[in-house]
Amino acid sequence: MTLKKKPVTGMKDILPQEMAVRDYVIGLIKETYRNFGFSSMETPCVEHIENLNSKQGGENEKLIFKILKRGEKLKLEEAKEEADLVDSGLRYDLTVPLCRYYSNNASQLPSPFKALQMGNVWRADRPQRGRFRQFMQCDIDILGEPTNLAEIELILATTTLLGKLDFHNFTIRINDRRILKAMAAYSGFPEEAYDTVFIILDKMDKIGLDGVAQELEKEGFAKEAVEKYLELFRVITPDAAGVRLVKEKLSGYLDPAYADGLTTIMDSVDASRDADFRIAFDPTLVRGMSYYTGPIFEISMDEYGGSVGGGGRYDEMIGKFTGQDVPACGFSIGFERIVMLLLERNYQIPGISRKKAYLLDKNLSPEAMERVIGRAMEERKDGCTVNLSVMKKNKKFQKEQLEAEGYTEIEEIFADRL
Amino acid sequence: MTLKKKPVTGMKDILPQEMAVRDYVIGLIKETYRNFGFSSMETPCVEHIENLNSKQGGENEKLIFKILKRGEKLKLEEAKEEADLVDSGLRYDLTVPLCRYYSNNASQLPSPFKALQMGNVWRADRPQRGRFRQFMQCDIDILGEPTNLAEIELILATTTLLGKLDFHNFTIRINDRRILKAMAAYSGFPEEAYDTVFIILDKMDKIGLDGVAQELEKEGFAKEAVEKYLELFRVITPDAAGVRLVKEKLSGYLDPAYADGLTTIMDSVDASRDADFRIAFDPTLVRGMSYYTGPIFEISMDEYGGSVGGGGRYDEMIGKFTGQDVPACGFSIGFERIVMLLLERNYQIPGISRKKAYLLDKNLSPEAMERVIGRAMEERKDGCTVNLSVMKKNKKFQKEQLEAEGYTEIEEIFADRL
Repeated sequence: MTLKKKPVTGMKDILPQEMAVRDYVIGLIKETYRNFGFSSMETPCVEHIENLNSKQGGENEKLIFKILKRGEKLKLEEAKEEADLVDSGLRYDLTVPLCRYYSNNASQLPSPFKALQMGNVWRADRPQRGRFRQFMQCDIDILGEPTNLAEIELILATTTLLGKLDFHNFTIRINDRRILKAMAAYSGFPEEAYDTVFIILDKMDKIGLDGVAQELEKEGFAKEAVEKYLELFRVITPDAAGVRLVKEKLSGYLDPAYADGLTTIMDSVDASRDADFRIAFDPTLVRGMSYYTGPIFEISMDEYGGSVGGGGRYDEMIGKFTGQDVPACGFSIGFERIVMLLLERNYQIPGISRKKAYLLDKNLSPEAMERVIGRAMEERKDGCTVNLSVMKKNKKFQKEQLEAEGYTEIEEIFADRL
Repeated sequence: MTLKKKPVTGMKDILPQEMAVRDYVIGLIKETYRNFGFSSMETPCVEHIENLNSKQGGENEKLIFKILKRGEKLKLEEAKEEADLVDSGLRYDLTVPLCRYYSNNASQLPSPFKALQMGNVWRADRPQRGRFRQFMQCDIDILGEPTNLAEIELILATTTLLGKLDFHNFTIRINDRRILKAMAAYSGFPEEAYDTVFIILDKMDKIGLDGVAQELEKEGFAKEAVEKYLELFRVITPDAAGVRLVKEKLSGYLDPAYADGLTTIMDSVDASRDADFRIAFDPTLVRGMSYYTGPIFEISMDEYGGSVGGGGRYDEMIGKFTGQDVPACGFSIGFERIVMLLLERNYQIPGISRKKAYLLDKNLSPEAMERVIGRAMEERKDGCTVNLSVMKKNKKFQKEQLEAEGYTEIEEIFADRL
């Protein structure tokens, strides 16, 4: 009986070299976010199918890995539709489970609750290069904090982490869902068309101002509205002055407090940064998920075309579970992309200890072996990584492998020379 | 629309207090095992259903969470049996995926390959107190090392870890599958009945020598064989002298090298220990899985009735995937049990940094808030955990919650006093 050697479609085996980087990043994330007062928490990877299908997951709901019912005999003959066979699935994000977790455990959690979640999620995407059907997500969320302190702390924690990983010169783009809407209202788009407008606006960085104009007109929107809309993007600058201009222009369409909030976030982050980045107002930033209700943000990095993380405020989502809204704001870093970028630049993990290997003659007496093991145990106690292995026929190849693993000292132990 | 608040049946939400202990243990495991030359690796949580059903998983194969086929429309009408709908499932252990991983990636791995795997596994067990359907496993395995150095290093790494977690006075029980078989052969049990004999022998610690005798006789085995068998257990002592006696008594039934190997393991571990434990020969140790081929071992702890980990040599399993046997030996610690024991004794995580909280007046000006955030960022840079939150109406309760989270310094910041 030979078995299947490859991983299941679209998922991957992680080799030791990549795992070393992942482990290091995971450790740094936990340490850095803990330092900001976030607490680790975890939900099961398996979630109720009803919760996964609650319309909070957008397109991801089409990509759920569904799990057959357990605990009773599967009634295949009587099953009329998929729902008769399925009662759970693998989570496709960490946000839906977080909301369930909070509504299940709120009485045992502090308020505000600052949550750190790291875990795998699964999406049955069409397999493609560099995107996998199982991947790690890493979210921080602050639940129960209505003020902009939440946004500021989330952005500072995330940027501090990126700084520690030697990322420089990246940009935090920030916008507000309510500014997005006010701009559309001011320009004269009908409210039921906002989503269509935003989907087109979202392409700005790919197709430019003219491209957006063309697509909006092709959609059948009034030329006047399109022109008024685009004029806004022409005059708004990507800084606090831009936000002030928005506040002024959109008077009557936008509660000025929202613009002030954005300025506060930008100024506070700018003043307290502990990393080398810019925070920029970007009125074209949309963020896909419809659950956002306030400020939204995204990390752009020159060395990587797309976004390497993002988040925003979603004050109405927990209410879907509990019937009572709880202010909520989160920031997710693109763990897999960050690991990929680090591997691409051949990132050297800092603070790796001394690595020493002993190659033991296979004819070593038990007593001699004991002495070597004793020595290794002492060196390990001193923080040195020590690898013991028995010498193979092809010793040269064995030593090359150890060197490739980072063992800088290799000592051969022979029976007659000990 | 209200959604389901509880986790799915048999799985659990992990609260911050438990997560802090888990994170600490995970970090310590990675650090300790890395020190012994083990490399982290990972396989997908989802595995081919054929591999899961390969008869390597014993009873666990009945407990697989099965996943519906993806990527094509589910043909419910045409499905005659479960296999028509399912092509993968959640892994129930880390050993089957490890063997697949090794056969898929051997050319890119060193030999011997010392693997550290931590990850969730799923079993659709009947829900019961303290046992969950999703739980973390933590395995170290050495693949490609035929000598007893593998067993010695696995045991020393595991016991060093337990010592660092302040476990004392535990016992590593050790036996060898081939000694088990030789004892049965010597006593005159027919070979095809060994498994039945071992299942009864495995109950020794619960029903004692007389109970085992009774059950063996009830099974219909010859009284003579039973008597000869039990006499062995009466005279064998749980030490190296016991192993020597076995070697002598079973002459003709057992290759003496296997007994010598066991003595070497016991002596080497005894000489190089870095923790407070005993290693004891236990001829009644069976270990359930039929894939073991040589030495087997288990950790017993007085404070916890059952086993908190175990392992052994399984030299023939990888051959099931590749057609070519590779020597393999592994040790799995019971991560969930260890965390449970630590929580029960109210384990204090060592080296927790200073924890400070600022409670901010909600009328603080943006400028004042900036100053507090700046101060917090400086303190964080110095390694202090700093939590910022806006003062709530029930300030007393908020402070109590922060104290419960371990914040020893709480400072209130008012607008007029800054």
